[in-house]
Amino acid sequence: MEKKIITISREFGSGGRTIGRMVAEQLGIPFYDKELVEQVALESGFAPKFVEEHGEHSPGRSILSYAFAPQGVPGVMNGLSTADFLWNIQCSVILQLAEKGPCVIVGRNADYILKDRPDVLHAYIHADMDYRADRIVRLYGESEKSPEARLQEKDKRRRVNYQHYTGRSWGQAQNYDICLNTGTLGIEQCVQILVNMAK
Amino acid sequence: MEKKIITISREFGSGGRTIGRMVAEQLGIPFYDKELVEQVALESGFAPKFVEEHGEHSPGRSILSYAFAPQGVPGVMNGLSTADFLWNIQCSVILQLAEKGPCVIVGRNADYILKDRPDVLHAYIHADMDYRADRIVRLYGESEKSPEARLQEKDKRRRVNYQHYTGRSWGQAQNYDICLNTGTLGIEQCVQILVNMAK
Repeated sequence: MEKKIITISREFGSGGRTIGRMVAEQLGIPFYDKELVEQVALESGFAPKFVEEHGEHSPGRSILSYAFAPQGVPGVMNGLSTADFLWNIQCSVILQLAEKGPCVIVGRNADYILKDRPDVLHAYIHADMDYRADRIVRLYGESEKSPEARLQEKDKRRRVNYQHYTGRSWGQAQNYDICLNTGTLGIEQCVQILVNMAK
Repeated sequence: MEKKIITISREFGSGGRTIGRMVAEQLGIPFYDKELVEQVALESGFAPKFVEEHGEHSPGRSILSYAFAPQGVPGVMNGLSTADFLWNIQCSVILQLAEKGPCVIVGRNADYILKDRPDVLHAYIHADMDYRADRIVRLYGESEKSPEARLQEKDKRRRVNYQHYTGRSWGQAQNYDICLNTGTLGIEQCVQILVNMAK
C-alpha cells in the first residue's frame, strides 16, 4: 500500500515541524500545521492562539477555559470540557484533510486519529535534551525559564494529552512506522529518509 | 561522527536478525548474533544453548541455575546470580567486539552497553502482532502454544531483562537513533535505510 499521507509527531524542539515542512515541499504536497490550527479555530469559534496552546496540552475542565469559550454560540460545547470540545473538532478536521489527498500533518495526535487508514506513514521525531535545548534557544530566544524547564513542561503536556486521548504511551516506537533522532541523524538526513519512503 | 557499528534491538519475529545479517553483508562487516552467544559461552563456561536462552531473559537467581553453573571453576560466579554473571560477561564481550572495528550486533542489550560510544548507530525493529505471528509460524513452525502466546512470552522476557539491566523502557523511541516497523515498511526497505545511513 502506497503511503500518501505522512503524520509527524514530534518532541518540542526536535525539528519535527521543520522536517514536515521540508518533506511536504520536496513531495509537492500540502503541509498542515498552522493551517490545521486555523481550521480548528474557525470551526470551534475559539481564537487560533487559544487552539494552538490548548490543542496538544493537558486535558480536563478548567474554570478559566469557560472564559474563553466561543461567544454567541450558547450550548455549542454540549457540556464538554474545552479540551474535549477541541479534540472532537480536531479529529473531524484531520479526517477531512486526509480525505482531500496526500499531505503532511504535524502534531495534533494525527497518528492516532488516522491509525485505521492504510495509506498513512506515521513518523515520530525526537532528540535528546541538550540538542533540543540548544535549538529552542536559537529559534525562540531565551526566556525566564531555563530551556530544560521549558522542554520538560512541553514534553509533559504533550505526553499527558496524548495518553488521555489515545490511551497510548507517548514516544513508544510501536505506535509509528518510523522514529528518527534528529540529534544524531541531523534534520537533512531525516528529511531524505522520509521523502525516499514516500516516493 | 561516522557510524561504524550498528546495534539492532528487535521484537521477536519482527525480522530484526534477518535485517542485521543483510545490512552486515551489504556493508561487508562482521555480524554478531550466534557468534556473540558462543563467545559469551566460551568465556562463561556455560553451554551456548544455555547462554542463548538466558542471555536476554528474566533476571534473578533461580535454584535451577546453579545446576547449570560451570563445572570445575569454584567461586567463578562470585556469588552472582546466573543472569548477573552472564550479563557481566556479555558486557565485556560486546565492549571488546566494538573495539575490533565496524560490525552489526543483534540483541543482547548492546544499545545500552555501547550507549557512550559516538560511532554507534542504534536501531530498534518492531512489527505488529499479526505480522510477527505469521512470520514465526512460517520460520519456526507451529508449536503447542499459539504464536501470539509465544510472542507475548518472549516480549515479556526481553522487556523485563532490558528494564532490569538498563533501567530503560523497552521499545521507547528515545533510546534509539532509528526505529522501524517491518510490518508496514518491509524488510528490504528497512535494510536499505540502514545501509544508506551507515554509508
